[in-house]
Amino acid sequence: MSNVKAASNISSPTQFLETKKGKYAYRRFGNGPGLPLLFLQHFTGTLDNWDPAVTDPLATGREVILFESAGLGRSSGKVPETVAGMAEHALAFLDGLGLKTCDVLGFSLGGMVAQQMIVDRPSIFRRLILVATAPRGGDDIMHLEKPSLAKYLQDPKLQGYAVLQKIFFAPTPSSQSAGEAFIGRLLRRKDDREPVSGPEVAQAQMAAFREWDRITGERFAVLKGIRQPTLVVNGVHDEMIAVRNSYWLSESLPNAVLLTYPDSGHGSLFQFHESFTRHAAAFLSSDSPFAPY
Amino acid sequence: MSNVKAASNISSPTQFLETKKGKYAYRRFGNGPGLPLLFLQHFTGTLDNWDPAVTDPLATGREVILFESAGLGRSSGKVPETVAGMAEHALAFLDGLGLKTCDVLGFSLGGMVAQQMIVDRPSIFRRLILVATAPRGGDDIMHLEKPSLAKYLQDPKLQGYAVLQKIFFAPTPSSQSAGEAFIGRLLRRKDDREPVSGPEVAQAQMAAFREWDRITGERFAVLKGIRQPTLVVNGVHDEMIAVRNSYWLSESLPNAVLLTYPDSGHGSLFQFHESFTRHAAAFLSSDSPFAPY
Repeated sequence: MSNVKAASNISSPTQFLETKKGKYAYRRFGNGPGLPLLFLQHFTGTLDNWDPAVTDPLATGREVILFESAGLGRSSGKVPETVAGMAEHALAFLDGLGLKTCDVLGFSLGGMVAQQMIVDRPSIFRRLILVATAPRGGDDIMHLEKPSLAKYLQDPKLQGYAVLQKIFFAPTPSSQSAGEAFIGRLLRRKDDREPVSGPEVAQAQMAAFREWDRITGERFAVLKGIRQPTLVVNGVHDEMIAVRNSYWLSESLPNAVLLTYPDSGHGSLFQFHESFTRHAAAFLSSDSPFAPY
Repeated sequence: MSNVKAASNISSPTQFLETKKGKYAYRRFGNGPGLPLLFLQHFTGTLDNWDPAVTDPLATGREVILFESAGLGRSSGKVPETVAGMAEHALAFLDGLGLKTCDVLGFSLGGMVAQQMIVDRPSIFRRLILVATAPRGGDDIMHLEKPSLAKYLQDPKLQGYAVLQKIFFAPTPSSQSAGEAFIGRLLRRKDDREPVSGPEVAQAQMAAFREWDRITGERFAVLKGIRQPTLVVNGVHDEMIAVRNSYWLSESLPNAVLLTYPDSGHGSLFQFHESFTRHAAAFLSSDSPFAPY
């Protein structure tokens, strides 16, 4: 397999790293002048949930590193019940790779982990992309019991990826069609796939969401200390993590640009993958101390 | 004067167009493959309030047309007391030029006029850029009496452009420094300047704001009928027209991307002129029926 062919989440082999905190599965591919870009994944998602239409174009300008946190896929250990616990695993992983700093793309739960990591260790990231996520103390975060989500999650006719298509995309023909294409791309990887997450993963991650949405101290004050350039992205019809959480992020982070997409929900980065990767690459390629790109 | 040198709001001569609705002052310069881009101006602003750092880079890919509405500068007539009245003038102007369709950049009051124009004549615009503006029925629109604005507007030590620097930019050293540079650029045009607006202009335009922020019928429902690709832009600390109006625009328009800038207010497009013109040009250059660019 040529290097070029391997620079894809369809074909890049899963690798493993042993650390004091356990064994982590990951994929690392691509090259270019940019700092490596760490991908931090959403609720119950494994390495196989990263859309190659998002990872692969970004891998043409830098290495991308997809991280499988503890208790997911073929990584060892248990899923922590706090975002802080997840951040410890991601930091141990970067330490194990010998990376002192990198860029990050945190999606949903992964965006919370990215925020916690930079609070715990401010030098860890140069630039942050926070997609469809929320600040600590945000609200309308992953309430799977609300009718707009429960009607899909509790529908016995919907299983696996069919649920994902419903809850990651808006209920319009155009967004659902983009969702179908997204699922098709996830299925293009045939071999070396990760085990699908079970209910114990979901349960621990839900506990982490409930801990994260508690307001502690002055609301959103912690964001004011994050000086790094940040790009905040969301679909305006996100039912899983309401878009107002992205408004709060971009209003409270001192150095953040916000980009929202129409006709889309939680998975706007997959629906508009050409636009998203163009914006993300332009943002990451900037050497400015300011977020606007 | 060479054509290249003239493609600037520093040097482009003011022209005049006679129509049945009156005589309008305007400037028209630049060229390129794009449709002409109509600029619609903010509260009390004349042709001289368009920052060359915004107009000139956009004039390299298309003609830009700066429009002076009735009762402003050297245009004839009186300022209408409704946005709808202003939209009639802008449509008469485009008819007079023989332009059946164009793109538009509406800033603040100008963004309201652009929305009204496309409601009145849906074919008039191909793509819209709405900066620091609000939908009909929005709120926190141009309340000059609120303390955060009144402290500058009622300060006898501040006059003319010094007020603009305070109220268009955030109260941080970086934003105020950008404001100073903006004022410097506005002053680079030495000759052929427009008369500055008097209190009767402000009074009529304030009446138009108060009529515009009334909720009539289902709130924001009119936006759902605007199918054209739209780019909504704002600074997150806009004290003149609160950023939540931009959130409402991007949530209710069916085909709108939202871009917000940090550390900036009403004049974010001038503060981040390099980023703004890059985004605007990319958006306008797209032939997609969808807003994401």
